[in-house]
Amino acid sequence: MQLTRAADYAVRVMIHMASLPEGTMVRLKTLADAADAPAKFLAKLLQNLTRAELVVSRRGPNGGFELAPAAKNATMMQVIEAIEGPFALNVCLSEKGCERQEWCSAHAVWAQAQDALLSVLRTHTIHDLAVLGERRKAQVNKEESLPGSIDVIAVQNS
Amino acid sequence: MQLTRAADYAVRVMIHMASLPEGTMVRLKTLADAADAPAKFLAKLLQNLTRAELVVSRRGPNGGFELAPAAKNATMMQVIEAIEGPFALNVCLSEKGCERQEWCSAHAVWAQAQDALLSVLRTHTIHDLAVLGERRKAQVNKEESLPGSIDVIAVQNS
Repeated sequence: MQLTRAADYAVRVMIHMASLPEGTMVRLKTLADAADAPAKFLAKLLQNLTRAELVVSRRGPNGGFELAPAAKNATMMQVIEAIEGPFALNVCLSEKGCERQEWCSAHAVWAQAQDALLSVLRTHTIHDLAVLGERRKAQVNKEESLPGSIDVIAVQNS
Repeated sequence: MQLTRAADYAVRVMIHMASLPEGTMVRLKTLADAADAPAKFLAKLLQNLTRAELVVSRRGPNGGFELAPAAKNATMMQVIEAIEGPFALNVCLSEKGCERQEWCSAHAVWAQAQDALLSVLRTHTIHDLAVLGERRKAQVNKEESLPGSIDVIAVQNS
């Protein structure tokens, strides 16, 4: 039970696009670098995201991909479902259902676990995560550019 | 992102074994019927469960499988991990970690979602689920053996 690499890359690329000024058109290569994803694989995922109306693509020399206007409000779960399809933690929770569910005590636990998982993934929007990510990157860059305060303390204590 | 059939069957078979009187030795065929699982596949899973000391197996004409004495207190999560190995909702949460995690805003959400999921799966023991399952089965059997009260109401209303 693990998220597919496809969904992981899709979330990464959506957050990256949401961090850019509205209407920024980005080339596949740039997106692949930002998501640390193989470009060919990402191209397929971007097709799925376009089909799900989370991304807009434009062909031609100035073409590329941009976030669909409404997609900033998309949640992580919407991005995952655009790639993986309808979510079911266990097959018994899928649309098909399960013959055992009337009495199976595990069924209720799977449902409860799925609710707990989804409530987290439905809380966070791509936009919120883009803002938070940019803030963290700035913080990390700031810390890296500070003088080596840890080294100084180590020298003082030695 | 879906639980494997293997882990699903393993949970089913463990709950079934926990519903039997302590020390009951069960044949593979009976367990396969109880778990609605293919016997050959289940045999492999029982090997994993035996290796994880959740099940005890005995060879020979009176052989079979029984729940290991301590396994009643095992949680659903322990059974899943005996089959699927160490759990990581996303690859970035695995032991390998992820280069992006210092600033990646999605990383924290995956971690939060994983905690929510695991806290449910670690709450429920195989023993609790066996007791609950038997109670539900009895309830379903009772309802099925009641006179057709719905039919009677339908006739009265027509």
